[in-house]
Order: sequence, then structure tokens, then C-alpha cells
Amino acid sequence: MGEETLPESTAEISLPGFVIDVAESERLGRSLGHRTVEDLLPSLVPAAMRHAQVPISRFPVGAVGLGSSGRIYVGVNLEYAGLPLHHSVHAEQFLFCNAAAHGETWIRSMAVSHMPCGHCRQFLQEVRDSSNINVLVTSDGPHAVYRPLSVLLPRPFGPPDLLHKDVPLLLDQHDNELGEFADVMEGAVGGCNGEVEDSVLNRKLREEAERAARGSHAPYSTCAAGFAVADSEGRVYAGSYYESAAYNPSLGPIQAAMIAKAIGSSTAEIVGAALVEREDGLVPHEGTARVFLAAVAPSAKLHVYRYRQSDGN
Amino acid sequence: MGEETLPESTAEISLPGFVIDVAESERLGRSLGHRTVEDLLPSLVPAAMRHAQVPISRFPVGAVGLGSSGRIYVGVNLEYAGLPLHHSVHAEQFLFCNAAAHGETWIRSMAVSHMPCGHCRQFLQEVRDSSNINVLVTSDGPHAVYRPLSVLLPRPFGPPDLLHKDVPLLLDQHDNELGEFADVMEGAVGGCNGEVEDSVLNRKLREEAERAARGSHAPYSTCAAGFAVADSEGRVYAGSYYESAAYNPSLGPIQAAMIAKAIGSSTAEIVGAALVEREDGLVPHEGTARVFLAAVAPSAKLHVYRYRQSDGN
Ligand SMILES: [Zn+2]
Ligand SMILES: [Zn+2]
Repeated sequence: MGEETLPESTAEISLPGFVIDVAESERLGRSLGHRTVEDLLPSLVPAAMRHAQVPISRFPVGAVGLGSSGRIYVGVNLEYAGLPLHHSVHAEQFLFCNAAAHGETWIRSMAVSHMPCGHCRQFLQEVRDSSNINVLVTSDGPHAVYRPLSVLLPRPFGPPDLLHKDVPLLLDQHDNELGEFADVMEGAVGGCNGEVEDSVLNRKLREEAERAARGSHAPYSTCAAGFAVADSEGRVYAGSYYESAAYNPSLGPIQAAMIAKAIGSSTAEIVGAALVEREDGLVPHEGTARVFLAAVAPSAKLHVYRYRQSDGN
Repeated sequence: MGEETLPESTAEISLPGFVIDVAESERLGRSLGHRTVEDLLPSLVPAAMRHAQVPISRFPVGAVGLGSSGRIYVGVNLEYAGLPLHHSVHAEQFLFCNAAAHGETWIRSMAVSHMPCGHCRQFLQEVRDSSNINVLVTSDGPHAVYRPLSVLLPRPFGPPDLLHKDVPLLLDQHDNELGEFADVMEGAVGGCNGEVEDSVLNRKLREEAERAARGSHAPYSTCAAGFAVADSEGRVYAGSYYESAAYNPSLGPIQAAMIAKAIGSSTAEIVGAALVEREDGLVPHEGTARVFLAAVAPSAKLHVYRYRQSDGN
């Protein structure tokens, strides 16, 4: 199919990437004959779905959202065979994590292939003014319309129940103070300690995991954390820990790093990883990170860098 | 305060237990001057909240529900310091897991201290006719009313999206075939293998974990699982793995066993545990069980019994 030909159906569109800039979005809209980006979003959902990683459910979900910046963000569901289901990521979480990682401040509208589950409706409460995010479900058929999130989760429990209104929310800028470096644990996933190799890759992993920890949204536990993975091609992908007011549907830093890896279209093996978290925090991720890597990348080395918060938080 | 005195406020009521039989519920209702059990439920919420285990959030939640049998079931939130938040349990999940473990077939009404989060609204979709479960939120104040769950989660994603209507749901009877015994892994939480001690307690742990696995609700992954823990007083508590159509807000067998331990009012240390799960299942719990025990009961021994499903499921 040539570049000049108009796709005949949305099934033939291929996604330019998980983040689509304004120029590309306008080009896509024109080529598909859409007048607005809100019209374009549902057309991109089938293409998004093809990127889902669903070895357990075989049920691909795609989500495509428009940010305040005009950029489009894509999300898909991710599952990992050999791990409990809490390691999986829903498409809507992927989309908002993608937006947060790219400095987007709000998502105006989102088209998603299936009715969002309650877990996602809850997770999205972490976004400021979440009740006004417009959601369209393409499985509603050709007459699907955008409805505000408040229609899908009336009378929500959310950040206003627990936080002062000035505390940054998911898409607000975060720059957490990590405090003083306390210690490092190094070793194979099995857990044995050893000497830390001071390689360029390890430094990069640590820097990226630290950057992710500074961007973490963890106002409930105050346990900011970040995770980074390196693939066999030397690329590093990092993700921030994103908490929910409901505590349980939080998105772990490991999942956020895997979202970053998917955004980078990396299918290469994970060879190394770094976790940055608090020393003696109430919500540590090291154990679950080792379980994750043992299933997904058993020969990867994990370094855990722990920080001591000076303010006693 | 004597037995004969009427409590002046609900703050003074103490809970007779996590399961309240019909006679006790009638006695409580009379002593508090309530005409119906629906009126009684909110009065018991403050007493329930005092049983919450919330070292992370310090935010106790209580839920009290009326079953079709006339029995009352209580739920509280459980959190575990030193573990990621996906190990925590919400009060509503506790209540429905409690009801399921006691053979209750439906919950007609539930009073809960705070607005249920989206995660719980989703989890409750696993109950047949969930849209008609009546929910009252006591933080709404003296004029709080019961509203059907469908008002709190309109247009849900749930079991009908994925399962045939005859597949048993959360409160329906389950008797999963476990298949042929495949192998056993034994050892300290650290993971070293060794010879299985054939003690009475280990046999009891295995039997209870098998019973729980047979009662597991895992229609999505077909990975039925059960977990049992023994406390230092020789008591054994078991729980079934309960999956959600949304995959991610599933309730792990470890969490279900901890619910059983809380129902049994056991605060004694965990000394042993057994996990029963499929060999080569897509959703194994062994790794996360080791992480859980390492944080909560580091000297406990875990046995993992694996089954091979003969039908190739
Ligand atoms: Zn979801
Ligand atoms: Zn909840």
C-alpha cells in the first residue's frame, strides 16, 4: 500500500508511534478525512490494539488519548505469563503513564476499545479535573459518543478525600527530593550480593531510575520509587511509581518501566535493571522486582539503590 | 458496661465476630432499636472499622453486609508494611471473600464507611446480579441511603463480557478439579529445597490449601489456587484465589488466607504455609507468596504443591 493511498478502513492504519506529535496527527486526520482530533482518536484504536501484549487473556485493549499539548498518546494492555495478574497493565493506565512520562499536563479526550474497568476508572482519579476527561468506547459501535469520566465513576473516592488540593497529582510536575544515598544491593535476580560493577550501562540505569523516582507520584505512602531496565541493545527504559488514593490499584515502577520499553518498541531481552527507592520505606518494591525479573528476564542483574529521607518522612 | 444496658452510640458496640448468625443479628437489632437488618448494618460499621489493619494508610475502612441466608458478614481493610500495595485488601473485598468462604450465595445489602473505590466496584462485578447489591455509605451522614451498585459503576465491564452465563461466579459453588499431583517444593522462604516433613500440621495445611483451590474462582486464567497459613497456636487458615474479569483487581490466594486469619481473630505469628496451584499455569503465585512471607513471617516454611490438569486446560 503506497504512501499516497487513503486507507480504506481503520484496520489498515498503522500507528506512527505511541506518542504522535501535532503535525503527524494533523496529517493522519487529513488522510482519514476527519475534521477534528476527537474524530481521529477512535480510528486509531484498532491500530493500537495490535500492539497489546496479552499472553494470558488473549484480549487486546487499545486506548488513544489527546493531550492539552495537542499530542496524541497511545496505550495498550500488557500481561506477563508466569506472574500474578497484579503485574499486568491496562491500556488506560498505559496511556496516562505515557502522557505523564512525556510531561503532558492533561488528557482532554480518550477513545478506548472496550468499556474501561472500575480499576482504571479509579486510577484515572489521580489526574486533576479527572471528572471532565471525555471517554469514548469504540465497542459501542458507530454511534459511540464521548462522555465525561464522571458518568463512568459517579461519587468517586479520590485524591480530594486524602490530600490537600495543592499536592501535585499524576499529570502535575513532580520533583521529589530523594534525600541522602544510603546503600546499594547488587546481584543476580536470585539475590546474592556482590561488588557493584561500575559500567557505563549501570550508571545510566541508576541515573534513569533516579530521574523516574524524582518524577514518582507517591503522595500517599511518601515512598517515591523508580525502576529502569536495559535491553540487550543497550537501550535504557525507566518508569515512575504512580500511586492511587485507593492504594491498591497503584501502578508499580516495574510496570511503568515496562510501559516505557513498549513505547520504545523494544522487544529485546532485559539484561540489567535498577530500582531506586527509600530505605525503610513502608512500600518497598525490591521483592516484587525480583519476582518480576525471575519470570521475565532471569539472567538480568538488578541493582537496588536506597535513599534515606532527611526530613523523616 | 453491663449486658443489659443499651449502647448509647454505635461507637460503643463491639462486634460479635466477622460472621454474625441470624439469632445474634436479631438480638443486636433489638438492643439497638432497629426494625430491619438494613437499619442495623450501618450501626455496626464503626465497630468493624476498629478491626482494620492499616499500618500504611492509617485509614480504617469497615463494611458490613447482609447475606441471602440472613447472616451478616463483616469486612475491613488489611495492609502490610514492607510490601507493595497490591498485597493490601479493601474492606469490600474482605466482606465478599468472607461471604464466599462461608458458602453465602448473595449479598443483598452492604453498609460501608467510605465511598467504595473503583477497584472494589469492579471486583464486586464477579457476583451474580451484582448490579442489584444495595450499598449505603455511612460517611454520607445521617441521611445516607442504600443505592444499587449499578449507580456506582454504570456501564460496567464484567463477567458477561468474557464468560458464558452458566460459568459459576464468585458466590456460586465452585468445585474445581485439580487434576493429578505433579510435585512439591519445600523450604524456608528463602527458597532452598529439601525433604518434606510429614507432620500433622503440614498435612492439614496441604488439605486446607487444596480445599481452597477447589473453591477458587479463576475462570479467566483457569489457574485455580489456594493458600493456607498455620499460626504459632496450631490453627490453620486458608483462602481461595478469586479472579476478576478485569484481570488486575483479582484477589490473590495469599490475601484470601490473610482474610481468613483475620476472621479467626488470629494475631499469632505465621509459622508455616502451603500453596496449591497448577504446574505450568500462566498465573503462578509462588514467587509473590515468598515475597509476602519474607516480609510478614520470615521464618515460616512454605510448601508448594503443584497439580497437572489432565484436560490440558
Ligand atoms: Zn482497566
Ligand atoms: Zn476499594
